[in-house]
Amino acid sequence: MDRFLTVAVCQSGPIQRADSRSAVIARLVAMLERAAAGGAELAVFPEMALTTFFPRWELSDPTEILSFFEQEFPGPETQPLFDAAKGLGIGFAIGYCEAVADGGHLRRFNSMLLVGTDGERVGHFRKMHVPGSEEPEEGVTVHLERRYFEPGNTGFPVFTFKGVRVGMLICNDRRWPEAYRMLALNGAEVVLIGYNTPLVLTETPRLAHLRMFHNHLPMQAGAYQNTVWVAACAKAGEEEGQMLIGGSCIIAPSGEIVAQATSLGDEVIIHRADIGMNAECARAGFDFARYRRPAEYALIGTQAGRAGE
Amino acid sequence: MDRFLTVAVCQSGPIQRADSRSAVIARLVAMLERAAAGGAELAVFPEMALTTFFPRWELSDPTEILSFFEQEFPGPETQPLFDAAKGLGIGFAIGYCEAVADGGHLRRFNSMLLVGTDGERVGHFRKMHVPGSEEPEEGVTVHLERRYFEPGNTGFPVFTFKGVRVGMLICNDRRWPEAYRMLALNGAEVVLIGYNTPLVLTETPRLAHLRMFHNHLPMQAGAYQNTVWVAACAKAGEEEGQMLIGGSCIIAPSGEIVAQATSLGDEVIIHRADIGMNAECARAGFDFARYRRPAEYALIGTQAGRAGE
Repeated sequence: MDRFLTVAVCQSGPIQRADSRSAVIARLVAMLERAAAGGAELAVFPEMALTTFFPRWELSDPTEILSFFEQEFPGPETQPLFDAAKGLGIGFAIGYCEAVADGGHLRRFNSMLLVGTDGERVGHFRKMHVPGSEEPEEGVTVHLERRYFEPGNTGFPVFTFKGVRVGMLICNDRRWPEAYRMLALNGAEVVLIGYNTPLVLTETPRLAHLRMFHNHLPMQAGAYQNTVWVAACAKAGEEEGQMLIGGSCIIAPSGEIVAQATSLGDEVIIHRADIGMNAECARAGFDFARYRRPAEYALIGTQAGRAGE
Repeated sequence: MDRFLTVAVCQSGPIQRADSRSAVIARLVAMLERAAAGGAELAVFPEMALTTFFPRWELSDPTEILSFFEQEFPGPETQPLFDAAKGLGIGFAIGYCEAVADGGHLRRFNSMLLVGTDGERVGHFRKMHVPGSEEPEEGVTVHLERRYFEPGNTGFPVFTFKGVRVGMLICNDRRWPEAYRMLALNGAEVVLIGYNTPLVLTETPRLAHLRMFHNHLPMQAGAYQNTVWVAACAKAGEEEGQMLIGGSCIIAPSGEIVAQATSLGDEVIIHRADIGMNAECARAGFDFARYRRPAEYALIGTQAGRAGE
């Protein structure tokens, strides 16, 4: 039986610090309506879709930090997004900052939620590869994600959405081949990705022109090497003086980019993904059970650094 | 201290069945001389550099099969290549079909040998991901590597050549992200690859135009995601009626192709690889010891197929 899933990537333009949750939600709802009007069954929003990318700042006031987090999701301000989706009969995945009570203190994760066409939770993922540092480091663009988020503890789960097996990755996760491989081994057919990626990293001048190449390359390889669809959604444009790249895209299991955003603003791209293409691509060389040699890869699961590091 | 290694990729044009070993060796020596004249310290030859790509045929006669293999390497016909390299003071890596006696029978591997500037063995690798099948399969381009070769038993070793840590991969190995990762975890700084890749696979018409894209994509991702240099060498052109793609290239740890062959014949491309670039690229996000999460990747080393397969 032919299987298709029509996916919309809802790239978000910049979100400034002063923008309220409700103003942001109104923008996301507008995109959700465009996605649904275009026939989409599942919409993808960026990482940290409700706030500005605050890890560019060194913050210490707990109340200020917590203002970027959701303690309940949906909560009063975000419920309209869930209601709109249910009304439109469209599912969505969205990145948000998750604060969760654990034995009297709050744990903080960079998370993504997958929501069904009925507005109910389908799945949940916490970013596994948290980049940056806890304190500013000499000669490095300030990126303090490790100050605000602990590394995810969900593993790489896969969920069923309208009969299709769906996994999620968040931003830096997309650069690590293990992330796609784990999702593929867990049965993923579609990988949803949200990201916030600065245009400029001061520490690597000779790599500066490669930011978009380095965005697409690992996602295209991840799609091709795992024969999965990838739908990747940026938050883009100038946020609080920092330019974020766009380049949101939908990638076929062949590794081809089949839809791509061209703006740095709110933009919806849609593709009717042929899930049958996964198996066709897998037959052309990626029969895992036949050709992979797990016993020879043991080091990948036991050793973090390079030999001699 | 700045570290450089000047690498030559010596792409080979087609080798027909009737071509003698000595005729082939003469062509390889001519390329080795061009490489040395261009300042190269290490030359890379293709997979199965001494013979035609015979797994396109279904052969059963043991003597005929063995004619494509080296039982000693170097042997009388191949020694001139080693002598030439020693005379030129250049190292090389070369793919060949290896037959090795083991308890009264011959075991066959698709192998690659790394030879030092003194003409002596430095390292040895046996192809880990042997593609194709043992018997022709319905609706699939005949590719019987598994009929003629057992999967390699060397793991993913890394060797020191002129102070640089070098690993090898052969053809299909280059499509699997685990192969680069294992070499990187073992300390590789440069990955040498030889391949024979048919232009046409009859079973996947909608992927037919992507053969070169699928050649470069996983190698560029492998270089970028592991911050290693990749030097990849094709056997190219029309061999016994079957067209093989070229596209031999040298790829920086940024994932950029910095040198590429343009012909389908014997062609030498050279690049002076800045080994210092590896660490610079690693600092821009690929600090393995800091960010990788091996315990979360365990499945990669324990489960071959996709869930539900």
